Amino acid sequence: MTREITKDTGLCISLAGRPSNIGTRFHNYLYAELSLDFICKAFTTRDLGAAIAGLRGLGIRGCGVSMPYKEACMPYLDELDASARALASVNTIVNHEGHLCGYNTDYIAVRQLLETHGLSAELGFILRGSGGMAKAVAGALADAGFRTGTILARNVTTGAELAKRYGCRWCQELGDARADLLINVTPIGMAGSPDSNALAFEPDAVRQAKAVFDVVAMPPETPLIRVARAEGKTVVTGDEVIALQAAEQFALYTGVRPSEAQIRRASEHARAV
Amino acid sequence: MTREITKDTGLCISLAGRPSNIGTRFHNYLYAELSLDFICKAFTTRDLGAAIAGLRGLGIRGCGVSMPYKEACMPYLDELDASARALASVNTIVNHEGHLCGYNTDYIAVRQLLETHGLSAELGFILRGSGGMAKAVAGALADAGFRTGTILARNVTTGAELAKRYGCRWCQELGDARADLLINVTPIGMAGSPDSNALAFEPDAVRQAKAVFDVVAMPPETPLIRVARAEGKTVVTGDEVIALQAAEQFALYTGVRPSEAQIRRASEHARAV
Repeated sequence: MTREITKDTGLCISLAGRPSNIGTRFHNYLYAELSLDFICKAFTTRDLGAAIAGLRGLGIRGCGVSMPYKEACMPYLDELDASARALASVNTIVNHEGHLCGYNTDYIAVRQLLETHGLSAELGFILRGSGGMAKAVAGALADAGFRTGTILARNVTTGAELAKRYGCRWCQELGDARADLLINVTPIGMAGSPDSNALAFEPDAVRQAKAVFDVVAMPPETPLIRVARAEGKTVVTGDEVIALQAAEQFALYTGVRPSEAQIRRASEHARAV
Repeated sequence: MTREITKDTGLCISLAGRPSNIGTRFHNYLYAELSLDFICKAFTTRDLGAAIAGLRGLGIRGCGVSMPYKEACMPYLDELDASARALASVNTIVNHEGHLCGYNTDYIAVRQLLETHGLSAELGFILRGSGGMAKAVAGALADAGFRTGTILARNVTTGAELAKRYGCRWCQELGDARADLLINVTPIGMAGSPDSNALAFEPDAVRQAKAVFDVVAMPPETPLIRVARAEGKTVVTGDEVIALQAAEQFALYTGVRPSEAQIRRASEHARAV
């Protein structure tokens, strides 16, 4: 699959508590497709500081960062891009000749998707969730000018904090709250989760919305997205977020921006395990 | 060339001031030939401590070590194998679940070649050179029971030291010294060196010897080896050292010992750049 590795072949890696093959396959597919002399491989670590020292010491070009390292990696970096600073969360490290800069391409992807799907900042939103990715989405919404929002989250600490940070309302139950834009950033509807068949927002809320954004990427069509599509709503899927954030990461590593068709093929290849 | 890389693919690397592709190609060829899920790539570094931290932090399985890191890497390791301890020089690091052990497969290869070529410890020897590899050869000779030897080296410090360490005579010029076993561990005869056409030992010394061992591997037939072959002497070539030490390294990394034919094919592939 890969061309011959030489001393000049660039190495990009990823660090995750539970590494998957999706990113590895996505990047290696595009390196081959675009004839770029890079390889990518996922790792885990028991010593994050040593792993990041390795980025520097070995001149590894870039590193995707997943749970549980997105915040923990920050003290080891030299610089945070605005995308990472906004969220205090890093999902991509780029090694600029030994100078390590942290980015958050989830944030970048969400901002782009709000724009390409024509989701105006005038829309009121309800964002369900208060984890790391919810922070990325809330930050992207705020920076895109969205002002009227509600954070729906059971967690008292993180939910209230997130709402406060972005001047949103906070509630623990949806009740009869309704909004134009519904966003799910919880595992509800995710394959393998206990709530894989559940709807993150009830059908009536979907009916009264204009657009539905589900960050869950597996399956690409969650129960929420299925209902929203059936109702003819604008939908943004987790699949799109993953592909776009990975493409951003790819462009940061290589300086080359793959086409939409290439990203789609790479995503399909990455998932066909 | 390489099969698809996954999160489970083992990574082995090498560290050198001026990395070459020979080791990378040798190891990757054998991984493919033996269907082992590994990849290998050469690196250089500006921070040896950070690079070795990376071995640990990323769970990199093994690391070949070349000039100028063979001694400098030792303080960062957890353990030295007898082969590395004997020489205070490491050319191979194996990561046993975070515990880094240093080996010297040059030493291991030289000891094996003395045996397979039937070079008895009764033979007197003259060893020309006093650098890192000369240490490996002198150590291997001493541990194999060779007792009567001369170190021929211009460098007053390293030459005298090496001779003293192994109870040898030391001389700066060959003069009329003669021995059964002549060993060249200098760059004399090496392609690209200023002495590429020179003989490391004069023809009369070769004529009076029983065996000639030239550690220079490029070209595989040095002027010294050519003369020794023409005289019908037993010869040991640098090619054999390189192939055997790399095979040892390969076995330490993977637990699999390639056959002689496989090693030969891998060496040919590695050099066919």
